[in-house]
Amino acid sequence: MSKPLILVTNDDGIVAPGIRALVEVARQLGDVVVVAPDSPQSGKGHAITIHDPLRLKHVNVFSGIEAWECSGTPVDCVKLAKHVVLKNRKIDLCVSGINHGSNASVNIIYSGTLSAAMEASLEGIKSIGFSLLDYSFEADFEAGKPWVRRIMEYVLGETYPAGKLLNVNIPKLPEAEIRGIRVCRQADARWVEEFVEGRDPSNQPYYWLTGKFINHDHGEDTDVWALENGYISVVPSMHDLTDYPALKQIHFD
Amino acid sequence: MSKPLILVTNDDGIVAPGIRALVEVARQLGDVVVVAPDSPQSGKGHAITIHDPLRLKHVNVFSGIEAWECSGTPVDCVKLAKHVVLKNRKIDLCVSGINHGSNASVNIIYSGTLSAAMEASLEGIKSIGFSLLDYSFEADFEAGKPWVRRIMEYVLGETYPAGKLLNVNIPKLPEAEIRGIRVCRQADARWVEEFVEGRDPSNQPYYWLTGKFINHDHGEDTDVWALENGYISVVPSMHDLTDYPALKQIHFD
Repeated sequence: MSKPLILVTNDDGIVAPGIRALVEVARQLGDVVVVAPDSPQSGKGHAITIHDPLRLKHVNVFSGIEAWECSGTPVDCVKLAKHVVLKNRKIDLCVSGINHGSNASVNIIYSGTLSAAMEASLEGIKSIGFSLLDYSFEADFEAGKPWVRRIMEYVLGETYPAGKLLNVNIPKLPEAEIRGIRVCRQADARWVEEFVEGRDPSNQPYYWLTGKFINHDHGEDTDVWALENGYISVVPSMHDLTDYPALKQIHFD
Repeated sequence: MSKPLILVTNDDGIVAPGIRALVEVARQLGDVVVVAPDSPQSGKGHAITIHDPLRLKHVNVFSGIEAWECSGTPVDCVKLAKHVVLKNRKIDLCVSGINHGSNASVNIIYSGTLSAAMEASLEGIKSIGFSLLDYSFEADFEAGKPWVRRIMEYVLGETYPAGKLLNVNIPKLPEAEIRGIRVCRQADARWVEEFVEGRDPSNQPYYWLTGKFINHDHGEDTDVWALENGYISVVPSMHDLTDYPALKQIHFD
């Protein structure tokens, strides 16, 4: 039996430690091809590049693994991977990450990591976005690796429905302290923003985004709860944004 | 009674004809403040600017209306509007558009217009993204204006729940041929992409995104159906991406 084809991408860029950790797990389970951004793309959400051409460069970053760096966004990487790099091959799984920092709750909307995985799921490809709750470039991805592998094996299984997207977040804990996996809903939390205001060298004003993540959702069935209690959170996610209950409440007659 | 405060933004840029049409309707209903991108931002999705400072410039583009152009994405515009431009004022409604081109179905995910409106709804602000099914810069926004006004009046009403987001698309038809408004779900349609491949003046390869929108969803309760049948489509939309049915199907025990 041929090995599954696994596409790996991320939003922190092809040289980030997180994607290296993900490639190391993925190569144990299948044939790996990497198509990832040539520069950090955090916060790019589901952006695509319409008005500019994209560049794609074959690079030797992971020993023995086919890898391409792309000048576009994470979503561009998935589109180029499917339509240019792998155009005649069936992608069995797309994994994105491991992101340096949380993508729990509403972060899924801003996240390039999760948007890349969502783009794959739009194409009917099983997909997972992985994130570790540690923003540091020196983050330790070892503790999460056995769990990353377990989740990938589960998703590669025959009974798992194609096209489903999982948003997986890993707490910043030693391996022995991770209590297991929780399948949960997206917490109803949000960012409370501020802008740092300053003056540039030409004395022109600028505004620089900063913010604090606030969770008002006290449910014990949320991803934020799971992570705060030592679990890996898994949120099955989708791209149909229709608010079905509201369909019955809104009338223009 | 004081007039409602209406924030207007878009993704085609502050000089696009579509935002002018929207301002003309909004000023009939409330006090209008415009914060919009200084350049076209189509396809930017929910991107935010993290690694660069943002610029905000007071401009005189709409006679008698406070207007600011911003160097960032549509979502950045909404954040700056709330936290810098209008920091002590309650925004009663955020309207985004009128976009030049459809944002029906899955386009909501790629659209800067809808992402700006969604950002407002994340902040608990009533919001509407408007789009006209005509990509042309010379598109005629007159036929849709009475409908835009009607939908805005409805949303400004007291019974309408705060924080709800509507994705409104207007067919490219003369006013007399628009058959009314349909509240509907997002069609399960998608883009079938290709990349145009070429060589730049330095003989380096490039890839340029192109694609065709394909609808496989034959439901008569979808936005695509409504638009093809002469109706304005209204899809109540949300930012909770949890796939609730899948919560029961996925187990790691």
